[in-house]
Amino acid sequence: MIGDEILSGRTQDRNIGQLARWLNVQGIRLKEVRVVPDEIEAIGDAVNHLRTSYDYAFTTGGIGPTHDDITVDAVASALGVPVMVHPDARAILERYYADKGGLNEGRLRMARAPEGAELIPNPVSGAPGIRIGNIFLMAGVPHITAGMLEGLTGTLEGGRPLVSVTIGAFAPESEVAEILRSAEKANEGIAIGSYPFFKEGRVGGNFVVRSEDEALARSVADGLARDIEAAGYAVTDGGL
Amino acid sequence: MIGDEILSGRTQDRNIGQLARWLNVQGIRLKEVRVVPDEIEAIGDAVNHLRTSYDYAFTTGGIGPTHDDITVDAVASALGVPVMVHPDARAILERYYADKGGLNEGRLRMARAPEGAELIPNPVSGAPGIRIGNIFLMAGVPHITAGMLEGLTGTLEGGRPLVSVTIGAFAPESEVAEILRSAEKANEGIAIGSYPFFKEGRVGGNFVVRSEDEALARSVADGLARDIEAAGYAVTDGGL
Repeated sequence: MIGDEILSGRTQDRNIGQLARWLNVQGIRLKEVRVVPDEIEAIGDAVNHLRTSYDYAFTTGGIGPTHDDITVDAVASALGVPVMVHPDARAILERYYADKGGLNEGRLRMARAPEGAELIPNPVSGAPGIRIGNIFLMAGVPHITAGMLEGLTGTLEGGRPLVSVTIGAFAPESEVAEILRSAEKANEGIAIGSYPFFKEGRVGGNFVVRSEDEALARSVADGLARDIEAAGYAVTDGGL
Repeated sequence: MIGDEILSGRTQDRNIGQLARWLNVQGIRLKEVRVVPDEIEAIGDAVNHLRTSYDYAFTTGGIGPTHDDITVDAVASALGVPVMVHPDARAILERYYADKGGLNEGRLRMARAPEGAELIPNPVSGAPGIRIGNIFLMAGVPHITAGMLEGLTGTLEGGRPLVSVTIGAFAPESEVAEILRSAEKANEGIAIGSYPFFKEGRVGGNFVVRSEDEALARSVADGLARDIEAAGYAVTDGGL
């Protein structure tokens, strides 16, 4: 995530959740997120860490036409390659802006890419995303990013999708902590999350069993539901 | 930000924006965010980087009563200090749970703190936050974090608050990019952000001038407004 607008609190981020859910469907886990300011070195350091630590790295933000859009420069500099005008991107932008006043200096910025990059189609607003190696440079505006992700669906190598089964109860999480802990300990290949809430004047929690094995997640969630009901709380399948 | 629930896309983060806005009022800039999973080493690495790179480091999440709440252990391990039961935290929890069934193993987890820590009052739900050195361990549930931040207001050393002045226009950002770029270049001590949108069937942008100098931010924004109007677009003070 690249952008002073997130770090200043001006803009509520929507891309972490959107990317996480899309990756789950591809069978890929989101393991780390960094939010950095519009500064070449901060972006480059984050990208270099993420691209070398994980299978894939995604950036959102900073690929538009204005002076604060420096993601392409930062990624090229991190990779040690020059920035070039990508001929296909230029052609796309020429067509897109043909009846909107044509290309100008700002619009042409959006045709720039690190040398060796491929384009990611943008069905919403012309200017393409960029793939170079295992790095994907996406838009900052969430519905434009959504269009780019749509085009990437099924093209990345993933494992089995992560499945979540949620149950909810008006039980204080401090009352069911031991039930959750022993269920997680007893079952290899699952993770159980506990998410407390306060609603309708009562405390409660949603308990989420995550696994790549759907049948296992379902059966662990069923066991949890039985134990929480035995402790005296009604359980709602699907969560509260 | 600590939590599988953010990285799985289950929970929409609210704490980045909340913390950023609170810090602005304290005269402190949020410079970097990392979102990491519920894993001791990942949390410890992030905390060690952030506490040594910046004046203050804040964590949110992972200080509740359940097995996946491991922030205290991770921070203690990162600092090389033992985890202890904090006597004041234990007393707070004993009072809080006196009419709610008393302390149990899960609830007692919330009295644990790295050795040498101080407590941050929690006016909402009993279990306190924790301060150790320049690290602040806060709740994951946003309205509980809000209560903790309220209690910390005015206690941290900050500079001048960052001021933002926003103007908006139904102008494609690619048409005004050069105006924005030259205004930023001509004025030391300001940063200009450009945030495009699509609404009422038209493209436009909000343009945000940020500075610690309010008069400068105002005068740069006024200059931008004049230039954008001279380019043929109506400008709305305060943004669209």
